[in-house]
Amino acid sequence: MTAAQLTHNILNKQSFLCVGLDPDPAKIPAHLQSEPDPVFAFNKAIIDATSDLAVAYKPNIAFFESMGEPGMRALRKTIEYLNEKHPDQFTIADAKRGDIGNTSRAYANAFFKTLAFDSVTVAPYMGRDSVEPFLEFDGKFAILLALTSNPGAFDFQTIEHQGEALYEKVIRTALSYENANRLMFVIGATKAEYLQKVRAIAPEHFLLVPGVGAQGGSLSEVCRYGLSKNVGLLVNSSRAILYASAGEDFAQRAREAALDIQTQMALELAKV
Amino acid sequence: MTAAQLTHNILNKQSFLCVGLDPDPAKIPAHLQSEPDPVFAFNKAIIDATSDLAVAYKPNIAFFESMGEPGMRALRKTIEYLNEKHPDQFTIADAKRGDIGNTSRAYANAFFKTLAFDSVTVAPYMGRDSVEPFLEFDGKFAILLALTSNPGAFDFQTIEHQGEALYEKVIRTALSYENANRLMFVIGATKAEYLQKVRAIAPEHFLLVPGVGAQGGSLSEVCRYGLSKNVGLLVNSSRAILYASAGEDFAQRAREAALDIQTQMALELAKV
Repeated sequence: MTAAQLTHNILNKQSFLCVGLDPDPAKIPAHLQSEPDPVFAFNKAIIDATSDLAVAYKPNIAFFESMGEPGMRALRKTIEYLNEKHPDQFTIADAKRGDIGNTSRAYANAFFKTLAFDSVTVAPYMGRDSVEPFLEFDGKFAILLALTSNPGAFDFQTIEHQGEALYEKVIRTALSYENANRLMFVIGATKAEYLQKVRAIAPEHFLLVPGVGAQGGSLSEVCRYGLSKNVGLLVNSSRAILYASAGEDFAQRAREAALDIQTQMALELAKV
Repeated sequence: MTAAQLTHNILNKQSFLCVGLDPDPAKIPAHLQSEPDPVFAFNKAIIDATSDLAVAYKPNIAFFESMGEPGMRALRKTIEYLNEKHPDQFTIADAKRGDIGNTSRAYANAFFKTLAFDSVTVAPYMGRDSVEPFLEFDGKFAILLALTSNPGAFDFQTIEHQGEALYEKVIRTALSYENANRLMFVIGATKAEYLQKVRAIAPEHFLLVPGVGAQGGSLSEVCRYGLSKNVGLLVNSSRAILYASAGEDFAQRAREAALDIQTQMALELAKV
């Protein structure tokens, strides 16, 4: 998918909602536990209930890996289902990978070829040759961690070097990488004031904003400082949608939670 | 495994060699391709040929992930084989994971419980709550990326903040995390002069040194500045051992390559 297509989908649906698929076996409703593949059944139900309100789905790979091979099978079935039944959805493998060049290439193959995701989240610590292999694929994106929404973000991401915070340096440096137009950046919503600094460096790149919902963070503030002329925002919600109910009505309640966010997003889009 | 047991094994074998298992399907000898699981057959042959010369094995997860579910099955069989037949080997999941707290916990479960590795490599960018879940397991270790051996290492790891390079700050900060005694650090061998700085901060923690062999780097220099009173070093070699030959003699040639490194290691250990 191109960035222009993603913007088109956002304007069409009046939504820049990304639904995070973090399936926790302990939280999957009891009536699904007898399904042959409860995790896939859960993901499928969530996707079907929310797809007209969302433009992106983001499975977090950790939850699938922790289940071993059955988890990896559920992940494969989930991305295959998205690509077959909902090909207009932008898909994100939230994997936070990064290794030396030839190894990052293997990870890129894992997520762009073996599993046909549109994008993968990438950790920046190892620098250029760890990131560029993810940028070699036409119509695919690397979403680089810049400023994350967790408490530990302040350990290293905000330290200053020559008047610039590390997350700013990460963004500025990455924009010099080969195929930097295929970059997006993770920016934690709980620090919306930082969005101005990010937009000063990367005015048009898409930003993936976690942390609206369960992790807190104000959608209005994110939009005020983060919206670009091509929208340029994907705002993620995971637990607030997935676990809106633990009962048989979980999909309907997930839809209501997604609709609530989409309604706010439409209002924000109307302001610009 | 405890660090003391690892030191005991090193002194007993006169080796601190870690064999990196980076199986590239295109490089696996032709005569193994007809095996039901060529990747596992290759790993098993390499392990059997080198286990008396090595103290650790380090599968790089990227190569397994890129093969999809068959790759993950080969990974599981490899760690099961190591734990059953070679329980004295220290096992490292080279995964370079790291995510917000509850997600890092899922990764820790993936590598310490679902797959029973002794350790996993972890990326530091997301800070404390991304690392500490890996430190909650008795007898298990998180091997934190500090200074890596790839060209991109200089993008961010060596930038200075208040007179200290980022990799130094990463080590110093991580030593304040809960259960910091369960930390080890990745230090790239191609920058042996940095080992002095690392040892000034972490005099006794084990260091995993990639990059001796295919990536260059001098074993003597690593030992001169990196050896601690409990040895405190694991030096990795992957391609120089795995792909010493592409013929039917690959295992014998791998053994010869490992023996060459182990012989040098014994000489270094005799110096101290």
